[in-house]
Amino acid sequence: MNTFGQKFRFTTFGESHGKALGCVVDGVPAGIKIDESFIQNEMDRRKPGQNAYATARKEGDKVEILSGVFEGVTTGTPISMVIFNENQKSKDYSNVKDLFRPGHADFTYFHKYGIRDYRGGGRSSARETAARVAAGAIAKLMLNEINVQIQSGICEIDGIKGSSFDFEYAKTSEIFALDKSKEDFQKEAILNAKKEHNSVGGVALVNVKNCPIGLGEPLYYKLDSQIANAMMGINAVKGVEIGDGIESVSLKGQDNNDEIRSTGFKSNHSGGMLGGISNGDDINVKIYFKPTPSIFIKQETIDINNNEVDCELKGRHDPCVAIRGSVVAESMMALVLADMALLNLSSKIDNIKKIYN
Amino acid sequence: MNTFGQKFRFTTFGESHGKALGCVVDGVPAGIKIDESFIQNEMDRRKPGQNAYATARKEGDKVEILSGVFEGVTTGTPISMVIFNENQKSKDYSNVKDLFRPGHADFTYFHKYGIRDYRGGGRSSARETAARVAAGAIAKLMLNEINVQIQSGICEIDGIKGSSFDFEYAKTSEIFALDKSKEDFQKEAILNAKKEHNSVGGVALVNVKNCPIGLGEPLYYKLDSQIANAMMGINAVKGVEIGDGIESVSLKGQDNNDEIRSTGFKSNHSGGMLGGISNGDDINVKIYFKPTPSIFIKQETIDINNNEVDCELKGRHDPCVAIRGSVVAESMMALVLADMALLNLSSKIDNIKKIYN
Amino acid sequence: MNTFGQKFRFTTFGESHGKALGCVVDGVPAGIKIDESFIQNEMDRRKPGQNAYATARKEGDKVEILSGVFEGVTTGTPISMVIFNENQKSKDYSNVKDLFRPGHADFTYFHKYGIRDYRGGGRSSARETAARVAAGAIAKLMLNEINVQIQSGICEIDGIKGSSFDFEYAKTSEIFALDKSKEDFQKEAILNAKKEHNSVGGVALVNVKNCPIGLGEPLYYKLDSQIANAMMGINAVKGVEIGDGIESVSLKGQDNNDEIRSTGFKSNHSGGMLGGISNGDDINVKIYFKPTPSIFIKQETIDINNNEVDCELKGRHDPCVAIRGSVVAESMMALVLADMALLNLSSKIDNIKKIYN
Amino acid sequence: MNTFGQKFRFTTFGESHGKALGCVVDGVPAGIKIDESFIQNEMDRRKPGQNAYATARKEGDKVEILSGVFEGVTTGTPISMVIFNENQKSKDYSNVKDLFRPGHADFTYFHKYGIRDYRGGGRSSARETAARVAAGAIAKLMLNEINVQIQSGICEIDGIKGSSFDFEYAKTSEIFALDKSKEDFQKEAILNAKKEHNSVGGVALVNVKNCPIGLGEPLYYKLDSQIANAMMGINAVKGVEIGDGIESVSLKGQDNNDEIRSTGFKSNHSGGMLGGISNGDDINVKIYFKPTPSIFIKQETIDINNNEVDCELKGRHDPCVAIRGSVVAESMMALVLADMALLNLSSKIDNIKKIYN
Repeated sequence: MNTFGQKFRFTTFGESHGKALGCVVDGVPAGIKIDESFIQNEMDRRKPGQNAYATARKEGDKVEILSGVFEGVTTGTPISMVIFNENQKSKDYSNVKDLFRPGHADFTYFHKYGIRDYRGGGRSSARETAARVAAGAIAKLMLNEINVQIQSGICEIDGIKGSSFDFEYAKTSEIFALDKSKEDFQKEAILNAKKEHNSVGGVALVNVKNCPIGLGEPLYYKLDSQIANAMMGINAVKGVEIGDGIESVSLKGQDNNDEIRSTGFKSNHSGGMLGGISNGDDINVKIYFKPTPSIFIKQETIDINNNEVDCELKGRHDPCVAIRGSVVAESMMALVLADMALLNLSSKIDNIKKIYN
Repeated sequence: MNTFGQKFRFTTFGESHGKALGCVVDGVPAGIKIDESFIQNEMDRRKPGQNAYATARKEGDKVEILSGVFEGVTTGTPISMVIFNENQKSKDYSNVKDLFRPGHADFTYFHKYGIRDYRGGGRSSARETAARVAAGAIAKLMLNEINVQIQSGICEIDGIKGSSFDFEYAKTSEIFALDKSKEDFQKEAILNAKKEHNSVGGVALVNVKNCPIGLGEPLYYKLDSQIANAMMGINAVKGVEIGDGIESVSLKGQDNNDEIRSTGFKSNHSGGMLGGISNGDDINVKIYFKPTPSIFIKQETIDINNNEVDCELKGRHDPCVAIRGSVVAESMMALVLADMALLNLSSKIDNIKKIYN
Repeated sequence: MNTFGQKFRFTTFGESHGKALGCVVDGVPAGIKIDESFIQNEMDRRKPGQNAYATARKEGDKVEILSGVFEGVTTGTPISMVIFNENQKSKDYSNVKDLFRPGHADFTYFHKYGIRDYRGGGRSSARETAARVAAGAIAKLMLNEINVQIQSGICEIDGIKGSSFDFEYAKTSEIFALDKSKEDFQKEAILNAKKEHNSVGGVALVNVKNCPIGLGEPLYYKLDSQIANAMMGINAVKGVEIGDGIESVSLKGQDNNDEIRSTGFKSNHSGGMLGGISNGDDINVKIYFKPTPSIFIKQETIDINNNEVDCELKGRHDPCVAIRGSVVAESMMALVLADMALLNLSSKIDNIKKIYN
Repeated sequence: MNTFGQKFRFTTFGESHGKALGCVVDGVPAGIKIDESFIQNEMDRRKPGQNAYATARKEGDKVEILSGVFEGVTTGTPISMVIFNENQKSKDYSNVKDLFRPGHADFTYFHKYGIRDYRGGGRSSARETAARVAAGAIAKLMLNEINVQIQSGICEIDGIKGSSFDFEYAKTSEIFALDKSKEDFQKEAILNAKKEHNSVGGVALVNVKNCPIGLGEPLYYKLDSQIANAMMGINAVKGVEIGDGIESVSLKGQDNNDEIRSTGFKSNHSGGMLGGISNGDDINVKIYFKPTPSIFIKQETIDINNNEVDCELKGRHDPCVAIRGSVVAESMMALVLADMALLNLSSKIDNIKKIYN
């Protein structure tokens, strides 16, 4: 249950304030060159403590590969990667140890398991997503071999929507803003919330170019349903939309259908898939993040003995999880596509003959 | 890949115009009374041909149980159910045989598999969802033993949003409308689209009462991510939202967090889950359906040889798939919860001792 | 739990005396010609009631394909096959309804599920293996496309061991005997046991020619461990041996290792696999069947209320299940190899580039 | 594919001469006390370098728990354990780098993946089984909570069979001999083979006491088939036998059936299971290990360019892998039973009501 994917699959482990967190990536084809600096670069994009718009917790997030790579190349055996926690020591958790922070998983973990690691959210902390980014980097290296490109950015913060989507610009923006003209307003909204010890929500957009036609395994491992699975499983995500999904609801069929010409689709309302299978057009997915539940304003809650108490959090948190979350969403997209690319190999007997005969 | 679920799992088979479709439901605990009239009643709710708001295709959708039930009770062995197609014979498909209908899976199936059953969409037809409803009925019978109730309805059609959610009323409405005051407008929108040979989109809401705390297996089989998986996999669904998901994006953390009192949560923005685990509050999920791609207006497309052609469909189709889709969504919710309820049994060693010691 | 395989996978359903039994085969590549007479021929090899050495129960075992095949070719969608039971009606089970037949699964099913279908063993009956043979026939048709051949026979009955292995001869033998010189003794042993209302054990040998190098997914889906899984799961099987497995125990390493020359292996003690991966040499597997537990001699047992009672069975049973079991073993081998062939497609990045680039 | 089990599942990673090997154990119920000294003690039983009958390679095999345990108790989150390799540095592999050692997986890994880590067998080395023992120790701690006991020993070495099975004695024997009267002959056979730079085979017996009735999920996750899967997947295993499996082949049904009295079974030919489900009697499984393929006698082989060459190995190896292998087999049994115990929780609706209502 801590494993994602069927053929290109990864398993993560580790808690926010434990010794280490990491992952085992299994099913990676042999023969892929592993550029460790690329992996580290991906980690650094998600890393906390880099500017005023993210948590001040500083983590080096140095990835160590323990297995599966030999002389710089994948061998087909499981790739294990570990990130040792560095900045987790000194904190005193006595003020949250026995109470349930509103909006957090404290309540549900305690009831499900009868025990919880209360240090920084334990396993339910977004810190675990570091392991997804490490795994995602391996997926990207594989997808690179078949020319699939993935990018992402932020299209909305605190209700302030961008209307243009410039992925190149987003790479240079501190908040990964896709619309430069809205960036300052979005930044201001974050800083205002931070000043008031509050938080804001946001929306990330993930885009895929050059996806082969045919990825997605109907009917219960479709590309769209597996993307929904992947994205909704990211901390704080509450909605997932494929293509023009939510807007489509108000359109008529004639306006929403993507007509086809010999040179390709005339429009892309569908977000690059039909019947849960990629159609070769750009994949576009929007991911809706709620405002960070960790705020520093007094809230009402109960403790583990059902006593009503006040909750006053201290610590370091992201005022807007969507920003760093977009990097995780991009990683999850890579992991889904790598998996689907491998699964699709056996769709036709002709492919199989090509390999064996 | 045609199987859904881990412990309470089902596999479906069958094409729109083949001999039969059906499912095998595996992992059903022994000792559950199977009320066949309840199963048939569930089928009838989804069944086509019942009023002006749905396709005119008439199917009896009679379910036959082939295995797994003995003297009216489940035995713990796989329950196989078959629905023989009745009304699939006479149609002439020569006009769509070689072209790709816009908005349909024709294009992607053809490219993925190199062959497709062009009769009524073959496997990609929404007709397959009949098998999900049959499986969902078994799930509901199991959930009934632990008092979980699931209901659904339509909260939006063609941009016309309801603002009240009366699930009892929806049961009596021909379009499963949750807001009686909007029902006539919603009906009118459907009939108008139908008259123009066009189609409309809609939004379904599924609600669960009395869900036990603790369902959902973090981190990669969370309740919310598995619901997203289940719902996005339904034909024509393009968006999934948990609780106030999309609205939450514009809220501040303080306003979106659900504070807790000794008697329960003060609000339910989260839609009944935290950290991907049910918190005991009502589960609310919205499912966004695009307008039916089958319309009877001339559209541009290509054929399998990449020639540009016109597509002029004839036949029988739903002007708004969201309506019958809401029944499927309800079934999928039942299937997810049944699975999660079984998986959660082993969360604590105390549960295990209760059974074995 | 009624599903076998990862990529080429099948799910079976049905009880000995229910309406029907069948299977859903999923993951079959599109584009394979389905010769229904071949499937039926496979069924007929396993079919009961054909001679004095098998049970007198007569079943037509006619397979009906319900889905997944269009115009005689696989479409990549699930292939469902059903076999309706014909000869199950008249029997009176009052004498075994409440007691546990020694050597049968009655005792364990009753305790595990709290209920059992007592008619002919219900789900635990070897009759279910008909569905495996149907699924295995599809696997053989796929393997045929890459020239893999599978054959089987009987090498030992009631302790009478054959010393030569003539698979061509076995096809013509009523007991699938591999050694013609031992066949009469083996037949006599069966008939003697039958006359005494007793039963005998036997050993089947499955051989594979032309298996590609590289099948088997280390470390927990190895070819040998998955074969062991497949074979031990056949009714009445109590031992599985790869290559010269059991004899190897008494050899020295030097004598057991298969040395290699440029033209191939000098010997084949390993049975065609090393490290759980096929090495291109013949695969040889021995499967040990216990004597049929159904005998017509008075035995001591208890009833469901723990009263000590005598068990006196009547009915129709195989005096030696190994014979028809060998056909099932052959089918299971086909199913394992088809699965492994598909899984292996992604072992190297070069294969993936061959398909996508 | 490097994961074993469904509900209590583990994933291993690591190569013989890489930085580290380890495992992630997922699905462990919360609330189990983790005695780290017990885990280390299990490791030490398998550890190399302890006496003349095992390889001289010395490894501390110190296990470090990275996650999943909080304040000495399991939390329900994945337990990750790492063993850093210590003694792997200095070796020069130039003499085996490009050739295929007979009886080893070199040939098949090279062909499957197109690349191999030639240092000490890489991933295919029996060194990986250290991770299985660590995972197995967690399984044993869980099984201990429901009073299941597992033990093992050696019943045959180089054809010298023991006839008594004293598991207490085996614990004190350097070769885990079950029959004290044969121990010296067995030891001598090992030392003789070692002296001649050769190796011998052996047979391990695993015994389980107090297994609950009902473990095993028919029809494709039976207890016996999953045990066969687990055991055949251990390095060098070529045969698996349940109960009196192989001997049973020569018995008549009347003699092989275990009759039942109100106080239990009168005999235990079946090895504690019927229809693939545990019957409450002792589970007995025999595991057949081939002689270690690593021998220090000149052998014929080829190199990766298909040139015929001589293979002359040097290094440190076990003259009889069955001995340390028996500890691994015991661990695998624990892992299978823990998994089956969790899966069986949902067999009856009564169990489910016991937890939720």
